[in-house]
Amino acid sequence: MTDYQEILDSIYSELLQQEDKGEIADYIPELAKVDPTKFGIYLNRIHEDNYGVGDAYTKFSIQSISKVFTLAMAFSNQGNKLWNRVDVEPSGNPFNYLALLEQENGIPRNPLINSGAIVVADCLLSTYDNPKAELLKFVRELANDDNIDYNVEVAASEMATGYTNFAIANLLKSFNNLENPVEDVLDFYFHQCSLEMTCEQLSNAFFPFANKGVCMQQNTCLTPTQAKRINAIMLTCGFYDEAGEFAFEVGLPGKSGVGGGIVALLPDNFIITTWSPGLNEKGNSYLGMLALEKFTTASKASIF
Amino acid sequence: MTDYQEILDSIYSELLQQEDKGEIADYIPELAKVDPTKFGIYLNRIHEDNYGVGDAYTKFSIQSISKVFTLAMAFSNQGNKLWNRVDVEPSGNPFNYLALLEQENGIPRNPLINSGAIVVADCLLSTYDNPKAELLKFVRELANDDNIDYNVEVAASEMATGYTNFAIANLLKSFNNLENPVEDVLDFYFHQCSLEMTCEQLSNAFFPFANKGVCMQQNTCLTPTQAKRINAIMLTCGFYDEAGEFAFEVGLPGKSGVGGGIVALLPDNFIITTWSPGLNEKGNSYLGMLALEKFTTASKASIF
Amino acid sequence: MTDYQEILDSIYSELLQQEDKGEIADYIPELAKVDPTKFGIYLNRIHEDNYGVGDAYTKFSIQSISKVFTLAMAFSNQGNKLWNRVDVEPSGNPFNYLALLEQENGIPRNPLINSGAIVVADCLLSTYDNPKAELLKFVRELANDDNIDYNVEVAASEMATGYTNFAIANLLKSFNNLENPVEDVLDFYFHQCSLEMTCEQLSNAFFPFANKGVCMQQNTCLTPTQAKRINAIMLTCGFYDEAGEFAFEVGLPGKSGVGGGIVALLPDNFIITTWSPGLNEKGNSYLGMLALEKFTTASKASIF
Amino acid sequence: MTDYQEILDSIYSELLQQEDKGEIADYIPELAKVDPTKFGIYLNRIHEDNYGVGDAYTKFSIQSISKVFTLAMAFSNQGNKLWNRVDVEPSGNPFNYLALLEQENGIPRNPLINSGAIVVADCLLSTYDNPKAELLKFVRELANDDNIDYNVEVAASEMATGYTNFAIANLLKSFNNLENPVEDVLDFYFHQCSLEMTCEQLSNAFFPFANKGVCMQQNTCLTPTQAKRINAIMLTCGFYDEAGEFAFEVGLPGKSGVGGGIVALLPDNFIITTWSPGLNEKGNSYLGMLALEKFTTASKASIF
Repeated sequence: MTDYQEILDSIYSELLQQEDKGEIADYIPELAKVDPTKFGIYLNRIHEDNYGVGDAYTKFSIQSISKVFTLAMAFSNQGNKLWNRVDVEPSGNPFNYLALLEQENGIPRNPLINSGAIVVADCLLSTYDNPKAELLKFVRELANDDNIDYNVEVAASEMATGYTNFAIANLLKSFNNLENPVEDVLDFYFHQCSLEMTCEQLSNAFFPFANKGVCMQQNTCLTPTQAKRINAIMLTCGFYDEAGEFAFEVGLPGKSGVGGGIVALLPDNFIITTWSPGLNEKGNSYLGMLALEKFTTASKASIF
Repeated sequence: MTDYQEILDSIYSELLQQEDKGEIADYIPELAKVDPTKFGIYLNRIHEDNYGVGDAYTKFSIQSISKVFTLAMAFSNQGNKLWNRVDVEPSGNPFNYLALLEQENGIPRNPLINSGAIVVADCLLSTYDNPKAELLKFVRELANDDNIDYNVEVAASEMATGYTNFAIANLLKSFNNLENPVEDVLDFYFHQCSLEMTCEQLSNAFFPFANKGVCMQQNTCLTPTQAKRINAIMLTCGFYDEAGEFAFEVGLPGKSGVGGGIVALLPDNFIITTWSPGLNEKGNSYLGMLALEKFTTASKASIF
Repeated sequence: MTDYQEILDSIYSELLQQEDKGEIADYIPELAKVDPTKFGIYLNRIHEDNYGVGDAYTKFSIQSISKVFTLAMAFSNQGNKLWNRVDVEPSGNPFNYLALLEQENGIPRNPLINSGAIVVADCLLSTYDNPKAELLKFVRELANDDNIDYNVEVAASEMATGYTNFAIANLLKSFNNLENPVEDVLDFYFHQCSLEMTCEQLSNAFFPFANKGVCMQQNTCLTPTQAKRINAIMLTCGFYDEAGEFAFEVGLPGKSGVGGGIVALLPDNFIITTWSPGLNEKGNSYLGMLALEKFTTASKASIF
Repeated sequence: MTDYQEILDSIYSELLQQEDKGEIADYIPELAKVDPTKFGIYLNRIHEDNYGVGDAYTKFSIQSISKVFTLAMAFSNQGNKLWNRVDVEPSGNPFNYLALLEQENGIPRNPLINSGAIVVADCLLSTYDNPKAELLKFVRELANDDNIDYNVEVAASEMATGYTNFAIANLLKSFNNLENPVEDVLDFYFHQCSLEMTCEQLSNAFFPFANKGVCMQQNTCLTPTQAKRINAIMLTCGFYDEAGEFAFEVGLPGKSGVGGGIVALLPDNFIITTWSPGLNEKGNSYLGMLALEKFTTASKASIF
């Protein structure tokens, strides 16, 4: 029988000694202040035991991981109509690429790059009177945990300096693929990115994607087909320019954020979240990627 | 001896009968209201007689032609330092191309495409306390005519709907190539584009470019070298994706605007301005391009 | 218990009545001659029964599906050294895209687009004295079937007209990413594409990818890790510009070819091959894509 | 009165002392052997005296300068029909850019980049039974000098290693924009590039472009309009990615080659040729560019 605690402990202690931990994202001033030595892992084995090591219970900025939550909300709300405004193809390009968006007439390649997530955010603004409150409610339900909030300083920091996202949103608007005012959409978008969660909370919140759409407390958040399809998008598009590498090395659907978090999952088996703030050159957590490679090798977990 | 009045009259009457007059730009709501049958030509022969036909004395929105004025202001003010922030190469692409700007790290290809003109506008904001008043003063001096003004409705219309330019300005800002706030730069930029002038006024205002930098009233606005270099930029970059075609067919430096105006000049000889609101598929005045081809063929004028 | 025969029969008879069957690829003259009404499906359930319907036992040109075989040969021969010359990221672009290859300095995005497969072919030429014979031997072993051959007319037809592939190979050569002469590499490449197999043979030949690297006759062709990684590449890169769509709609690793064949597989469960020559606008078999969507919906098969 | 001999002597002696002379092109093995200290200038003042300094009478490989000769032949032969197969817009990109060619469906941006010159070469192959002999005859007539020849070693060297040009020609073929076999077109193209001429011969051969199409020996080679239009193309497209810079700094139509030669001209006034093998990072002669800037500053020559 696989001893998961031993696997996690061994990965944790080995990687703690790693000298190169990557570079902290400094383009968001508030994020640059995080302690670079933080490192945590949390494993939620569906219907089995759970395991945490290191800083698994410390909150961090989930950033782009939030794109999975808004995608789930919009997809469950709108169904396949959503795909008229955003595609599901890998982008094969860095995460802020305007060229492709321009070339493809304002239809983002997929909902997990910035342009696509901004379109998804716009959908939610058109749907809900108070989308910030609704998103918070949705994520708390997914995680079965009310101790989850936005970090308004981080959101304000991005609102003041996120020029690339303003460029993207205006470009979307010029192609008539944004229904609401740019400022409103980005205010919501930067709030979603500022959500702070622990490794434990993230693993729990991704439970329905690994469990055919059913949450920990047995609510149905998504249809089985929707859960399956979001997993497919995560696998092909979840890691910026390194999506293929992640599928190749790790073999699981997942999503990373510039705050240093990564969530990955094996359907019907487990969800694992890692957090280490230093990023590799592709913008994914350096230690997190290593930890997940080691975990899937040791546990022989893969969808393939 | 060349009879210029006869040449202009003949071109005018021939083109008036042309059925296809191109399409009026409708992406700026205020501009869409213009009378599509308007058509005027004005020829200023330096130190010789001047000639006007048709609607040569009716004001229209000069739009991108204003980029030559702001370039002249910034170049005369900053000298070659300006070229650290904007290049002088033809863009070889449509006039709103973000891809190239992104690929070249926020350095616009030249000052006569939107991104380059926005950088030039930013330079002027950093230089003058009241750049709008200074620009108006500068253009009035160039044209030796105080009856020139902004159209604030047109400027406001573009400010409310010019999403592509907002995208460009934010992208420039993300590359640290914009010193002032996006809103301020674009407010100035949309004002410069909203300048209204007649064919006569435009021909007069371009006098110094054809006269080694010296204005009609004998003030020196530019050094001879600066005037020469601005002409070079107009020749290689003045007509969006049709710059080569214009050099090939017409053989003169010039600049067009989506309001349907075109100014062209032969150094030491003349400046000619045409106005017809319908545009060809490249965004240049359809009748204006034809008129200038006919004029240079008839008068054998060319820099080549 | 799932009645697979019934599922296949039902899909087959339903799609036979479909009027729109896509367009046959006509850029390879020899391929344009195929009967457009051909349609077959073959399901190999690992360690269980097999099922065939329609033209499942008629040979067709496997074209790009052959890229999986050469990739398996080169990967098993060279190991991870192979990835110095070709990447594993989705290309997010049509299948003959030179721009990306140029931009990325001659390193193809992945081994399942033409440029990547040409690099893989070059590796095999550097490894084997008689690569054509070796490949044939390898594929026959995989399929446990000696009745598999090249179609030399098809290969010659492509050699005479495959200008885009000559462009790609010369571009690779200009970047020093081709060790052997262009003519030799393409002669081999066009032979591999000309392989003719039935749906049954293809399903059998893909057995080891679904069975941890072990063939039908129990030989180990690949390590379990290699099999897993090739599946990951198929999932993210196997369908040109429609890879994400296939992962989203079907949820299985697979590979298509312009001859109208598609192979897909669920690890540890089954391999399914469809063949219908008409292609959709992305270059994948029109009926084949529909058939696989219907099959995975009916059988609830998915890796996600 | 301007003392041209003094101007040239002064430029020559000043630049001889320049330490940085650029880098010799080494991608064509035969060219890499040239003596990097060679430096010559030749000025042909139409209907006036001529002047040479330094190595003005030593032959060198004219390379891309030959594109102007083949363009003149094809344009005079085919007239405006030529523009169906090649455009006249600046490319705004390095000289071997396949991406743009692919994006624009095989229509090269202009006849002075490699792809455009290969199309022009193809036109000549379709026109003449013995295009190599015809081109030689044409250039000898232009220069009024029979001592001009191909260097067959250089041509063979490029034929064996010019993979990028093979890629371009095959890409053109794939878009049906090449009538003759790739090998034949490139054999001719590499021969034209291998032409060897002195600064004096080049200045003389460009005489008709500066003299309304009439050669030194008074033959009419081109119509005045054709000469004018070729000058327009040289100005907007003659210097790869530095065309705008050359127009800006020098202000004359011209053409450079990787052999280190540059020809520039002022219509009705003069033709000047410089030769120094070291290239700047844009692929143009380093000393040649400086010499031409100094010459036009000293002589106040400019078309603007």
